[in-house]
Amino acid sequence: MNLKVVILAAGQGTRMKSKHPKVLHKVMGKAMLDHVIEECKDLSDSKPVVVIGHMAEALKDHLKDSADTVIQKEQLGTGHAVMMAVSHIKDEEPVLILCGDTPLIKKETLCAMAKLKAEGYSAVVMSSIIENPKGYGRILRDTEGEFLRIKEQKDADEEELKIREINAGMYIIDGKSLKENLQKLSSDNAQNEYYLTDVLEHIKKENKKIGIFIANENEILGVNSRVQLAQAEMEMKKNINTFHMENGVTLIDPENTYIDKEAVIGRDTIIYPNVRIIGKTIIGEDVTIRENTTIENSKIEDNVVIKSSTITESVVGENSTIGPYAYLRPKSIIGKNVKIGDFVEVKNAVIGNGSKASHLSYIGDADVGQNVNIGCGVVFVNYDGKNKHRSTVKDNAFIGSNCNVVAPVIIEEKAYIATGSTVTIDIPKDSLCVARAREVIKEGWTSKKGILSK
Amino acid sequence: MNLKVVILAAGQGTRMKSKHPKVLHKVMGKAMLDHVIEECKDLSDSKPVVVIGHMAEALKDHLKDSADTVIQKEQLGTGHAVMMAVSHIKDEEPVLILCGDTPLIKKETLCAMAKLKAEGYSAVVMSSIIENPKGYGRILRDTEGEFLRIKEQKDADEEELKIREINAGMYIIDGKSLKENLQKLSSDNAQNEYYLTDVLEHIKKENKKIGIFIANENEILGVNSRVQLAQAEMEMKKNINTFHMENGVTLIDPENTYIDKEAVIGRDTIIYPNVRIIGKTIIGEDVTIRENTTIENSKIEDNVVIKSSTITESVVGENSTIGPYAYLRPKSIIGKNVKIGDFVEVKNAVIGNGSKASHLSYIGDADVGQNVNIGCGVVFVNYDGKNKHRSTVKDNAFIGSNCNVVAPVIIEEKAYIATGSTVTIDIPKDSLCVARAREVIKEGWTSKKGILSK
Amino acid sequence: MNLKVVILAAGQGTRMKSKHPKVLHKVMGKAMLDHVIEECKDLSDSKPVVVIGHMAEALKDHLKDSADTVIQKEQLGTGHAVMMAVSHIKDEEPVLILCGDTPLIKKETLCAMAKLKAEGYSAVVMSSIIENPKGYGRILRDTEGEFLRIKEQKDADEEELKIREINAGMYIIDGKSLKENLQKLSSDNAQNEYYLTDVLEHIKKENKKIGIFIANENEILGVNSRVQLAQAEMEMKKNINTFHMENGVTLIDPENTYIDKEAVIGRDTIIYPNVRIIGKTIIGEDVTIRENTTIENSKIEDNVVIKSSTITESVVGENSTIGPYAYLRPKSIIGKNVKIGDFVEVKNAVIGNGSKASHLSYIGDADVGQNVNIGCGVVFVNYDGKNKHRSTVKDNAFIGSNCNVVAPVIIEEKAYIATGSTVTIDIPKDSLCVARAREVIKEGWTSKKGILSK
Repeated sequence: MNLKVVILAAGQGTRMKSKHPKVLHKVMGKAMLDHVIEECKDLSDSKPVVVIGHMAEALKDHLKDSADTVIQKEQLGTGHAVMMAVSHIKDEEPVLILCGDTPLIKKETLCAMAKLKAEGYSAVVMSSIIENPKGYGRILRDTEGEFLRIKEQKDADEEELKIREINAGMYIIDGKSLKENLQKLSSDNAQNEYYLTDVLEHIKKENKKIGIFIANENEILGVNSRVQLAQAEMEMKKNINTFHMENGVTLIDPENTYIDKEAVIGRDTIIYPNVRIIGKTIIGEDVTIRENTTIENSKIEDNVVIKSSTITESVVGENSTIGPYAYLRPKSIIGKNVKIGDFVEVKNAVIGNGSKASHLSYIGDADVGQNVNIGCGVVFVNYDGKNKHRSTVKDNAFIGSNCNVVAPVIIEEKAYIATGSTVTIDIPKDSLCVARAREVIKEGWTSKKGILSK
Repeated sequence: MNLKVVILAAGQGTRMKSKHPKVLHKVMGKAMLDHVIEECKDLSDSKPVVVIGHMAEALKDHLKDSADTVIQKEQLGTGHAVMMAVSHIKDEEPVLILCGDTPLIKKETLCAMAKLKAEGYSAVVMSSIIENPKGYGRILRDTEGEFLRIKEQKDADEEELKIREINAGMYIIDGKSLKENLQKLSSDNAQNEYYLTDVLEHIKKENKKIGIFIANENEILGVNSRVQLAQAEMEMKKNINTFHMENGVTLIDPENTYIDKEAVIGRDTIIYPNVRIIGKTIIGEDVTIRENTTIENSKIEDNVVIKSSTITESVVGENSTIGPYAYLRPKSIIGKNVKIGDFVEVKNAVIGNGSKASHLSYIGDADVGQNVNIGCGVVFVNYDGKNKHRSTVKDNAFIGSNCNVVAPVIIEEKAYIATGSTVTIDIPKDSLCVARAREVIKEGWTSKKGILSK
Repeated sequence: MNLKVVILAAGQGTRMKSKHPKVLHKVMGKAMLDHVIEECKDLSDSKPVVVIGHMAEALKDHLKDSADTVIQKEQLGTGHAVMMAVSHIKDEEPVLILCGDTPLIKKETLCAMAKLKAEGYSAVVMSSIIENPKGYGRILRDTEGEFLRIKEQKDADEEELKIREINAGMYIIDGKSLKENLQKLSSDNAQNEYYLTDVLEHIKKENKKIGIFIANENEILGVNSRVQLAQAEMEMKKNINTFHMENGVTLIDPENTYIDKEAVIGRDTIIYPNVRIIGKTIIGEDVTIRENTTIENSKIEDNVVIKSSTITESVVGENSTIGPYAYLRPKSIIGKNVKIGDFVEVKNAVIGNGSKASHLSYIGDADVGQNVNIGCGVVFVNYDGKNKHRSTVKDNAFIGSNCNVVAPVIIEEKAYIATGSTVTIDIPKDSLCVARAREVIKEGWTSKKGILSK
């Protein structure tokens, strides 16, 4: 079934106490609204229509081409919000109405709801049965258990308030029925608003069938405060982590592991606590990711070991070890069997198979060959105050400790740069380069100076 | 109402298994006793009297001038403890009696209790209704629901043990009544102690009114073991985190965020998991504090981004970025739009607007101007083995990688220090300083030496 | 009582989705099977017999000499598994049958069960009373409450399914009885398997006494998936952390503290969140371990302060401070009152009392005396591309910043190495060593070059 999706996102979200639109606050690294758009993608062949109001410009800027927008200038209720989208609704196309602040709703659930709709219902409303229904509209059913109407909290009587089946605020309604009945809405109720839920009542009066789809309480959480935002984060984290564990990934402490939805992780990979995997990161099999590591939009191949490091937009080849305390900045392409050790930064550089940079070095804007040994304290000097340049180090070369490789230079195969040298010229294959002063010794100096005299 | 505060802190706290006084163990970075003193500050215009006994000297040293102390040499019960403080009690001044091991008690609760006291009661006792009352004294009420007496666990009969309303151990009692009735106490009971609670019974017998103030269970937790200490920590953490979320701060994972009570945090600031904010730290709006960051007694201005860093007693100006893996030690004053990158330490230094120290450098005891570029591996050498000195780098200067700036020197505006130089003299404006040896090349050296021969 | 231990570990563990044997997956750093072997060690004077099947070779490789193994080629039930071990069972030796996937079982519990066995029972079965018994075999008791039989979930009727006392799958059975009755087993049941539990029924028929030992639900968790593996980890973590807190160690957040079973920690030590203590680590009293620290197989003496650092196979002496962001690699022997600061790596080195390496240095393969000052950016160059060498720095020496100490050299007492020097020769006592070029200044250079022209 092809649906037209309308997403309500005009609300102010006062309780967020924010200068940003509520639905743009993020859960697991992604705006709530984008989660909703993502999850309903497969149900529609057209862009969703997002009803915006408060901070409309910020929302438009964010959405760009991912959705059409319509403006709801005044906040006159959910029915009023959907009215704004009427020009996008076709008679023959059922409309899926969602809220921009329910980031936990799942594709599978929306598909199942659409399937129920296809069983001959004019409309389907999503409900959920929850422990504490306070504040929600209640689902009233008739004696056959069929949908009767929805009563808002403020309009409900004492008996109705006891009902624990609540309106989740998501609907699928025939386009024609929706449009016709939106026109019949009035704001003559406790909140002086046009209730979208009254549309259902009108459809019911036409003796059309209205289905109820009961969804899991966890999926319908609407986020109205930062406390609820944190709850949504925790719930989504749990879902994602369970998914990976069921797929054969060991999470030492799933409560302290943060993996974005898009990540792909291979079997028998072990992830220690306080690891964060961001964006479209792909991690191979048998990888060990030790505590305090953050990996963003990167590819980590099989058997890699990463300890307490930060990796962004980079690739790490098989069997390599990274960290602890390494920092791979964007465009670091690390080969196989490479060691990038502690306090090493790599940026926009290729490191060939079997090479090592074990400590306290910076390799920026460089092409490093295979089996190169980069000593401790080495700096690839890539900036001269005006431009950035790139250096090349060929296979089996050796860069001594505390050396500077001042770009642009080429260090040929098996060249050996002595400790403490600053290299500003190309170094031929197989040669030694030394650039340092000889030691001068002044005996008796410290006594004479009266220092170090403990 | 002005109260005299008496805090009981003489107990041994055997279950803590500690060589330090129980009430000095910390919750959210502050001694339990200090939390109690802090929360009752507004209720009294005189210092609290702390009744001390075990490890009295350590407690006196800790308290200094923040409280008066009286010694309870023998542990003969709560009544006996208050007797020790009698010289501090005036007839006309009601006495607020608190315990030094209940760090979760809140000012607002004590104020509400004082308000109840002012409604004509001679004494008010704080109670709480809890799931498992075992071990606590039970509140017995008469048929009108008025206070009757308190029965200790050991003295209670089977029916009384079923009562779930317990004595929280905090009281407000008229000074005169308290003093008179303390004299009537006897230790003829199951524990052979002078029960403070018997004072209430005596007051009741005088036909005076005794109020009961029912407090939230979470506030009255008495800490007697390290397990309970951790519980108190968790509860206080939760309270503080909820406060900030309700004020417009996003906490990605409030269970893994540790913010001390004194911290102030602006709206739309986002705090990632495993961040610790210590002491009187002030954080602006729209700040992003990424995972694994610790900030202590510092000021962070708007729009700053901090990643996996440690900041102590420092200031970071607007729009600056810090880390990952940066370490700002005390008296680092970072300007606006500054970048302090990975493996950089700053100490007792001023960094001007727009300057950068992107990697692997140490800037200690220095005044750095605006738009200065500090390369990689730069060391501000501030210690000569005897004294510390200070250096100055003026606007738009450029310090090449692996340079040493040996204090005291002045590097003037737009001076350029070439990579690998050690600077021991002042460098004029607009000039280049080079201090390094030329490269000497020995061709064929590595073959001859038989190294790098893979 | 001396028991023969048989551990069932032949199952496939399909739900783990792993290429490794299920029982080798780790909980708190140790294979589940090894936890079981460890906990029953004291109950037997012979090696346990482990029944293996799936991935038998990997298990044999892992177990080495720690257990005997027998192969169960086909998975025909627990009874069949024990049959494989029959040659190891002596008539007069009771047999303790355990599962390799229950890592939480405790020595104390097994001892208590053995004690019950000694009270005249022919067999004792371990049961547990749990909330949701689904999937487990149920314990059926007769009207006297004595053991009747065990019914597997699939064979149980509706009434039996309501029973919440379940079979924990651990038994102690007289050797002779076990052997005789294993022969009577048939696979004529819902799962077509030889149920070990039928042995109990046969013993019962012989009018012998069968005891039931009710164990805590938490100890009998069988791990069949990575989700359960994480649950076991959490439970064991909690047990260990509670143990340390009860012994006088402060854990700021026990939910985020990861301590292996073998660790020993002294009183009044404070451990901050996100600390991991691995293997046989011994930590003294009054140690402060701040957040984000990992310590493995090391010894930390009293009063040490460690911040956000990684320490492996090293020793840190009294009153020393480490970090933040320090990395002690194997064989670092740090003396007393030493400071190892930020971005410092130590490896296979001895650092004498009172010495300091405050920042950005690498001390590898070195013997450093007392009160030595190692500046910032210092590298102990230990590798020449072919061999590793070792250097010595004697008491009270001073190594200036960005110096290289090129091994093998000896720097004698009170020698002073000037900033930026590369030392390749031995330096006499009390002398100054300088090895650097003088500054050359080119005035007006930056204007002429047209750089730094903001």
